[in-house]
Amino acid sequence: MRASRFFISTLKEAPSDAEIASHKLMMRAGMIKRVGSGIYTYMPMGLRVIRKVEAIVREEMNRSGAIELLMPVVQPAELWQETGRWDKMGPELMRVKDRHGRDFAIQPTSEEVITDVVRTDIKSYRQLPINFYHIQTKFRDERRPRFGLMRGREFTMKDAYSFDRDVAGMQQSYQIMYDAYVRIFSRFGLQFRAVAADVGAIGGTGSHEFHVIADTGEDAIVYCPSSDFAANVEAAEALSLTPARAAASEPLTKTATPGKAKCEDVAQYLKLPLAQTVKSIVLTVEKEKGNETWLLLLRGDHDMNEIKVNKIAGLAGGYRFATEAEIVETFGTPPGYLGPIGTKQPVTVVADRTVANMHDFVCGANELDFHLTGVNWGRDLPEPLVADLRNVVEGDPSPDGKGVLAIQRGIEVGHVFQLGTRYSEDMQATFLDEHGKPQPLQMGCYGIGITRILGAAIEQNFDDKGIIWPASLAPFEVVLCPMGYDRSETVKAETDKLYAALQTAGVDVIVDDRGERPGVMFAEWELIGVPHRIVIGERGLKEGNLEYQGRRDAAATPVALDAMVEFVSAKLAA
Amino acid sequence: MRASRFFISTLKEAPSDAEIASHKLMMRAGMIKRVGSGIYTYMPMGLRVIRKVEAIVREEMNRSGAIELLMPVVQPAELWQETGRWDKMGPELMRVKDRHGRDFAIQPTSEEVITDVVRTDIKSYRQLPINFYHIQTKFRDERRPRFGLMRGREFTMKDAYSFDRDVAGMQQSYQIMYDAYVRIFSRFGLQFRAVAADVGAIGGTGSHEFHVIADTGEDAIVYCPSSDFAANVEAAEALSLTPARAAASEPLTKTATPGKAKCEDVAQYLKLPLAQTVKSIVLTVEKEKGNETWLLLLRGDHDMNEIKVNKIAGLAGGYRFATEAEIVETFGTPPGYLGPIGTKQPVTVVADRTVANMHDFVCGANELDFHLTGVNWGRDLPEPLVADLRNVVEGDPSPDGKGVLAIQRGIEVGHVFQLGTRYSEDMQATFLDEHGKPQPLQMGCYGIGITRILGAAIEQNFDDKGIIWPASLAPFEVVLCPMGYDRSETVKAETDKLYAALQTAGVDVIVDDRGERPGVMFAEWELIGVPHRIVIGERGLKEGNLEYQGRRDAAATPVALDAMVEFVSAKLAA
Repeated sequence: MRASRFFISTLKEAPSDAEIASHKLMMRAGMIKRVGSGIYTYMPMGLRVIRKVEAIVREEMNRSGAIELLMPVVQPAELWQETGRWDKMGPELMRVKDRHGRDFAIQPTSEEVITDVVRTDIKSYRQLPINFYHIQTKFRDERRPRFGLMRGREFTMKDAYSFDRDVAGMQQSYQIMYDAYVRIFSRFGLQFRAVAADVGAIGGTGSHEFHVIADTGEDAIVYCPSSDFAANVEAAEALSLTPARAAASEPLTKTATPGKAKCEDVAQYLKLPLAQTVKSIVLTVEKEKGNETWLLLLRGDHDMNEIKVNKIAGLAGGYRFATEAEIVETFGTPPGYLGPIGTKQPVTVVADRTVANMHDFVCGANELDFHLTGVNWGRDLPEPLVADLRNVVEGDPSPDGKGVLAIQRGIEVGHVFQLGTRYSEDMQATFLDEHGKPQPLQMGCYGIGITRILGAAIEQNFDDKGIIWPASLAPFEVVLCPMGYDRSETVKAETDKLYAALQTAGVDVIVDDRGERPGVMFAEWELIGVPHRIVIGERGLKEGNLEYQGRRDAAATPVALDAMVEFVSAKLAA
Repeated sequence: MRASRFFISTLKEAPSDAEIASHKLMMRAGMIKRVGSGIYTYMPMGLRVIRKVEAIVREEMNRSGAIELLMPVVQPAELWQETGRWDKMGPELMRVKDRHGRDFAIQPTSEEVITDVVRTDIKSYRQLPINFYHIQTKFRDERRPRFGLMRGREFTMKDAYSFDRDVAGMQQSYQIMYDAYVRIFSRFGLQFRAVAADVGAIGGTGSHEFHVIADTGEDAIVYCPSSDFAANVEAAEALSLTPARAAASEPLTKTATPGKAKCEDVAQYLKLPLAQTVKSIVLTVEKEKGNETWLLLLRGDHDMNEIKVNKIAGLAGGYRFATEAEIVETFGTPPGYLGPIGTKQPVTVVADRTVANMHDFVCGANELDFHLTGVNWGRDLPEPLVADLRNVVEGDPSPDGKGVLAIQRGIEVGHVFQLGTRYSEDMQATFLDEHGKPQPLQMGCYGIGITRILGAAIEQNFDDKGIIWPASLAPFEVVLCPMGYDRSETVKAETDKLYAALQTAGVDVIVDDRGERPGVMFAEWELIGVPHRIVIGERGLKEGNLEYQGRRDAAATPVALDAMVEFVSAKLAA
């Protein structure tokens, strides 16, 4: 490509609504242009990156045996009503009426449409397994679109849907997609991590998220540096921090803790470690014959994990946090001084695994401005129900027993999910098995946020000069910067020769033939983030040299004119 | 591609709502699947054709210097309000509100968004000319979607927008696009015709439509077989059918024509040729100080062309057909017996060019059940205003004087248009000229109906067995049909060898390894329309032969095993 025939439009300043690096840099580099809130035009420079993402995704999806089709953007409500999602989904589902008043959804995802395809077109077990995918424009009417392509409203997604005859088949299709995703993200040249995600009602290893590692990521990823364990913080199992409970060594004592309603304050006031305190969380389960009160106990420095609590038998059916009035009625005291001992009304006590192994701990005395110290299970109160209630924290033992957990931030860019028969049952999508008996299709779904990849790649790879694209995603792999293309015959001739030679070698190269001043030209390409730059100047040419500089290199390297194609090809192959 | 890894789903019968060949065949061949009225999923087989169309369009657009970007599907109403199209466009513009109640359009076209891009990103004449295009999903809420991809609601279109500093530049950009379109449609391998289209207020050669020739086409295309004249019937200039007026030879006579209100009936009753009759069309132009009545005169066998009438000075401002009451008041008689002689009120008479050169003609006598014969201009009534009022008909002289006109049916698949400053003025899209003075951008727009091409290609190329794709658009160029791939080692080995060799030669080949019966297999690929078929059978192999059959060939041709790659490559290069 010649820059004079391309469209380059960089900005000195990012617009004020751009909050994060990737949004700012994409705007400044002229990759996207805002059309409306969360809606962008992908400018020529940005579109080239999107096409590279798409090409890698498409190649690996095809390699995995998935088959591409294209489902519509505007989808009839009837299909969404069959699965109940028309009503269940909130305002993020963009709804529209046609001229005849019929309802349609602007698709955020296509489970219904693909299930409609297979229920008519898949008839026999002989046609299974099958995996369809498309790369299509999606819309999600976010309440507060922001962060550029990271949380836009219109975006491009690859979504795939596998159909199998049984659970074992679904798990195999799932594994094939998992492996394809690992290849895809590896080819992107990004640091990423596949983490076990919460799987809701399905259980097992039914879902993984693929995260691009970045300090600015919205999600916390838990992993074990000495094993391959990795999970979303919401899904990571928290073990007890003490393998067994030690014997009681202190007497149960009621202690005044005036005005100290928080564990941190109590620990400081009593000069005890925070890890010796236990906090109380009160939940109400509404029942026809009178509400139940549940008391969850967590160590003072731990946080409750709602997803885990949602899975506890007795709470899975629905609960809410207790009101202050309910708390006073049950415990005889307002929040801040609650505990499992001496409640006014009976409560169901559930202790986190770590709390269940604690001894001589501190908790509220169910009396304003008082706490109990030296509390011990069995001696002072009955053994509790025990469950995993909390988020893991850095340094926790890995659930696989192979080390301790670390936490890093990530940006979710892919998600694979075993759906089972959730959609096929609602939509009566069946196949005939060997015995001619209809069976529901076992389904999996697999998404990659195509346009989001751009934002995530930049969050992981930028500096104060601009974007640093991995070569596989860069709008151009190499930029040629001739010094005086319009003035020097020699520079022009050698530039054109090198340009042709690099093209012949299959390198995606742009030559900046616009005649910009070197400073402007260099700054522009550093902002845009082309990973390899070659400067062609008269001075160097006299010695038979060109200057190569990688986008992360501190300085340029002279490379002999004749060796440059090989030199750059080697860099790109690395 | 191996058929066992692809998705093939053909139908014996087309659904009942499929009216035309292309719709029926695309449904039967499993290329599309209906999701809702005018909304389709492009199935794997159909998507391959779409991708081939897109690739050719993209290559030629890039070659012409146009630059690809991607504008959003969902576009804010504000931009559409700036040009007034938000209000002017009817219900075919799909409108949607977001969760905050803001208005958006689901784009049918993107003049507003691209003009918004250039008004911020194009600042100087130095950046001109520039031409942006995208290939994107569009939506047009047709009242009655039908004909499959020919008149769907959701469809894919390539739209390009050129921006120039002056009219001459715009015309040059237009010509570049025109030439690119000729290359594109030639590469499709379709019979097509570029025809001058009506240009509304712009004039000159400001618009061309590209039509794929097909008997089932909705549009009539006028062309001159002995020159390169071609136009949409609405835009083709109609010359006088007689070069000059002959002298009067009959007296003006009032003749009873009881109950004969139509020219055909009058001609038959009077035993005169229809071409000697003149019909009267009465228009009303509403004015504040009293309405004007216009009388248009056309030969009895000619049809009025509203687009031409719209351009007549005095009518261009707006007119309507006169009511029966107005006609009685002005002519003293109801429609059917009207004429230019002896009206009760003054009328403005405009004669079509052919009528102006007629002599001894027949027209209404302005008296119920009476006509006049032997009417002659100048002698019996004043010379009229003369204009081109009618549609051309087959056999008319070509406006370029180089022969006579023929008419064929076509399907509009492309349109190029000189827009001038229509959008740039409404949206204040200016650039600074050499003198630093802001000037409005001169704009052109250029569309190709990507998905419509599939329908048009089929309407032009099918037989009773199915579709006949041109090789450049076919989902696969070549299909290998082994006879007993699953039974015969020899057949399997030779098939695999040929498959590999064809792939190496760059041929897009599918091997049908499903083990279907030959009859079923052949019928399926004939329906799908793969242009080249190779049958690999044990019998032929014994003699070292394979069987080749082109989709239009009546019978198969034996080709030596070793010569097949070369043979097929030659066919594809032809």
